[in-house]
Amino acid sequence: MAKSKEGYFTEENSIDVVNERISEQCDPRLKEVMTVIVRKLHEAVKEIEPTQDEWMQAIMFLTQTGHKTDDWRQEFILLSDILGVSMLVDAINSRRPSGASENTVLGPFHIQGAPQLEMGANISLDGKGEPMYVSGRIIDTQGNPISGAQIDIWQANEDGFYDVQQKGIQPDFNLRGVFHTGEDGKYYFKSAKPKYYPIPDDGPVGKLLASLGRHPYRPAHFHYIVQKKGYETLTTHLFDPDDEYIHSDAVFGVKESLMADFKRIEDLKKIAEHGFTQPYFEVEYDFVLAREK
Amino acid sequence: MAKSKEGYFTEENSIDVVNERISEQCDPRLKEVMTVIVRKLHEAVKEIEPTQDEWMQAIMFLTQTGHKTDDWRQEFILLSDILGVSMLVDAINSRRPSGASENTVLGPFHIQGAPQLEMGANISLDGKGEPMYVSGRIIDTQGNPISGAQIDIWQANEDGFYDVQQKGIQPDFNLRGVFHTGEDGKYYFKSAKPKYYPIPDDGPVGKLLASLGRHPYRPAHFHYIVQKKGYETLTTHLFDPDDEYIHSDAVFGVKESLMADFKRIEDLKKIAEHGFTQPYFEVEYDFVLAREK
Repeated sequence: MAKSKEGYFTEENSIDVVNERISEQCDPRLKEVMTVIVRKLHEAVKEIEPTQDEWMQAIMFLTQTGHKTDDWRQEFILLSDILGVSMLVDAINSRRPSGASENTVLGPFHIQGAPQLEMGANISLDGKGEPMYVSGRIIDTQGNPISGAQIDIWQANEDGFYDVQQKGIQPDFNLRGVFHTGEDGKYYFKSAKPKYYPIPDDGPVGKLLASLGRHPYRPAHFHYIVQKKGYETLTTHLFDPDDEYIHSDAVFGVKESLMADFKRIEDLKKIAEHGFTQPYFEVEYDFVLAREK
Repeated sequence: MAKSKEGYFTEENSIDVVNERISEQCDPRLKEVMTVIVRKLHEAVKEIEPTQDEWMQAIMFLTQTGHKTDDWRQEFILLSDILGVSMLVDAINSRRPSGASENTVLGPFHIQGAPQLEMGANISLDGKGEPMYVSGRIIDTQGNPISGAQIDIWQANEDGFYDVQQKGIQPDFNLRGVFHTGEDGKYYFKSAKPKYYPIPDDGPVGKLLASLGRHPYRPAHFHYIVQKKGYETLTTHLFDPDDEYIHSDAVFGVKESLMADFKRIEDLKKIAEHGFTQPYFEVEYDFVLAREK
């Protein structure tokens, strides 16, 4: 590190001058983090060579992003999402042994306290949309069933909205449920086929997306949190591979291993068996939990 | 660039996947800027490996910085200042031929419309503090005087506050003045010796400074904007080299070439000559303007 003469700032020594100011008494992790942030920030500025106007545009963008954020809207998380940062942090924190199911982002629509249901229950409380029957097993990396695993499921409706986005329009806890596996590790429930939807795009992040020529859509998916003591908690989605946005998720949440097969079932006997009155979609997917490190 | 298979995100290909989404129709400069930002941001995340909690702390820091910002307080500019980004952008935009005076940051306290004064005027309207007599010349890189140059000067008082920070306490336009050079290129005015002062540190940026073990002080200085048609506008400060914070300016604004000699004058004849009634500080400094490119 080129110790700068008397600590005066120049274009050449800028990174060292700023980082040398951090005190020896500083928390070591904060020092480590800020040292990297300063270095990468200065590298970016040196490569971009922003004009004063461009610098001010960046300041105003951050200001507007802060002003859009309140108790109900987190525009900085959206920004992190559309730049792939949320997914990257998730990936770094979810490195698993091969064979274990992959994580993806939690998203902003999970809520605590969804109703605990019996296997087979229908979480579509208003019966709208195309019916869906989902089943599978929770197993360990040796293929043994895990009993007593808790499965928390939530999703948007056929119009692309979660219940919490449409209070008074959708029933409370629509398309949400918590299930627990038995000895066989199996789970199964009924629901409605999810649809793609836009992330909130009426703020500065939506404007940025538009300027980049990017759309705001997430492909159809439903969410899982699977947890069992002694295993790593799995926070993930299952995606519809036929969705038109499957290759361009606005928040980069799609992973190849998280594609499910949405099979359209027209067989009248199977339709009747599940208590449906029209063709439905069948999804089967096993989740593999990794042992806690 | 490793084209990612089907555009799905992994820890390894994250930078390319995000940047490949930018449309061909995107404004080329925006594309260039965002490509660098995404790359440096992902490099930082990969080096830091933040936990989910640390990522959330970063989101909350940015949120609080946004919420602290209003029409009177720009916490993101403060953040840019204390990380050396403002100075770096200034340096990049103020590369000058050798011999020309150096820029430093504008700061938030410049205002338009300060009174136009005759050479020799005293800009200290309340007469407080230790008197100061400042003189020098505005010249070109060949040493020729520049006539008709406009010199806009502003500074904090002996308590470290600008007039706009103490409305009703200091007179309006206290310690501000606009002067114009004659044929000889000379300028001179009377004022009060400035003192070090803290940047506003009651917000998230102040908290960050404290966590890093850094103080919030700027060494004593006064500001100049010198402009003349055909020359690059010079936005700069003069600093007191004896100030206790001269080697640790919180915003990295100090440059070696911008030190002035603050000479204490006790000679009674000279004191009387300038109309002072006590010892004063004498500062002499020539500014060299570069021809516009």
